[in-house]
Amino acid sequence: MDFKLYYAPGACSFAPHMVLEELGMPYTTQKLDLAAGDQRKPEYLKLNPHGRVPTLVVDGKPLTENVAILTFLGGAFPDKGLWPKETWSQAMLLSALAWIGGTMHPAFAHFFRPIRYADDAAAQEAVKAKGFASFHDYLKQVDGWLAKSPKWMMGEQYTVGDPYLLVFYRWGVKSKLPMKELVHYTRHAERVMARPAVQRVMADEGITLG
Amino acid sequence: MDFKLYYAPGACSFAPHMVLEELGMPYTTQKLDLAAGDQRKPEYLKLNPHGRVPTLVVDGKPLTENVAILTFLGGAFPDKGLWPKETWSQAMLLSALAWIGGTMHPAFAHFFRPIRYADDAAAQEAVKAKGFASFHDYLKQVDGWLAKSPKWMMGEQYTVGDPYLLVFYRWGVKSKLPMKELVHYTRHAERVMARPAVQRVMADEGITLG
Ligand SMILES: N[C@@H](CCC(=O)N[C@@H](CS)C(=O)NCC(=O)O)C(=O)O
Ligand SMILES: N[C@@H](CCC(=O)N[C@@H](CS)C(=O)NCC(=O)O)C(=O)O
Repeated sequence: MDFKLYYAPGACSFAPHMVLEELGMPYTTQKLDLAAGDQRKPEYLKLNPHGRVPTLVVDGKPLTENVAILTFLGGAFPDKGLWPKETWSQAMLLSALAWIGGTMHPAFAHFFRPIRYADDAAAQEAVKAKGFASFHDYLKQVDGWLAKSPKWMMGEQYTVGDPYLLVFYRWGVKSKLPMKELVHYTRHAERVMARPAVQRVMADEGITLG
Repeated sequence: MDFKLYYAPGACSFAPHMVLEELGMPYTTQKLDLAAGDQRKPEYLKLNPHGRVPTLVVDGKPLTENVAILTFLGGAFPDKGLWPKETWSQAMLLSALAWIGGTMHPAFAHFFRPIRYADDAAAQEAVKAKGFASFHDYLKQVDGWLAKSPKWMMGEQYTVGDPYLLVFYRWGVKSKLPMKELVHYTRHAERVMARPAVQRVMADEGITLG
């Protein structure tokens, strides 16, 4: 299989990037400059009509949405061990991915890109403030999950959900939330970042935690 | 397996309700009154800490998030034919479910529950207006998908994605969007509603299209 990931440094595409590296199979990447609007160029919109990263092109066919890309990369290569083996655990992981992608990620987007959610400037400020508060609440919820989990998000097994969580931990740090107070999430982020595959991807994207 | 669905009439829980009925296996339901705040009662929060419907309880264990519930119901019962057989088609369907649940559904929530996204009244009005416009755009995108699809969302096979789409078609009608203009989506909604399982669920929830 031929994999090509379209990504932007430090964006949510960081998650499938870490997973591809962890899988240890060959893949190529194409960097997009979101500030320059690369994601809205006609060639890219052919791959991803929503004009967002990530897009994973597999044997020439584009797959979009983190939840689907992470599940595909995990589930289609069960021998690589990044996806639970048991049906109920798979359902629980997918539930977490769906909540992260459909609730926690959008809360940050309200803070980071309020223009998507209201047209006038005063309303955008209100959306930003509420999004930031919600994002902080959601990070605390993740800290609560990780408090109950001995090692990784799903227990003993490192899955595609763990690097996905690192994306939002990093956004919390970058946006100056008191992330150190979230001791379980902090310990988890350190553990994920200790993995050689994650270190290689951070170097490749040119990003740091703080 | 023992299934119990917590739902509210006409809410997004309508999707897994239609899927359960289509599967033809026994299940029970518990109706919640969202206006009365049943979803925030302590007993319910034990099952679903997010305080939302749907929750599907399977052999006593709760599963939340439509994307995960629909995938579980489809994928765990492959002989029922509501989930694609081929890995790539599964990925494409999951991508669609993730976009519907993580992008189209939240747009409607901005219109329907703006209080989640901004604290002051003027900002809430702005959020409502933008959410309504985005929701309409997204419904048009779905109409575009269905224009390319001969019969159901994924082609020849009726999958868990089809009843999920009906939820949003109905919300479009209820909120007085010109849904008839979306001829492909309208034809699709009519086809879904022609299914006996869907008719039984609409009668059971006490809901109509218009
Ligand atoms: N639901 C999508 C969201 C993707 C998304 O919003 N990506 C952001 C970066 S984190 C993006 O491309 N933003 C560019 C823009 O909004 O123009 C997913 O999870 O894949
Ligand atoms: N991401 C969740 C969203 C669930 C959701 O927002 N449900 C709505 C009904 S459509 C709800 O329970 N609202 C009640 C409330 O906000 O208090 C999913 O797809 O399951």
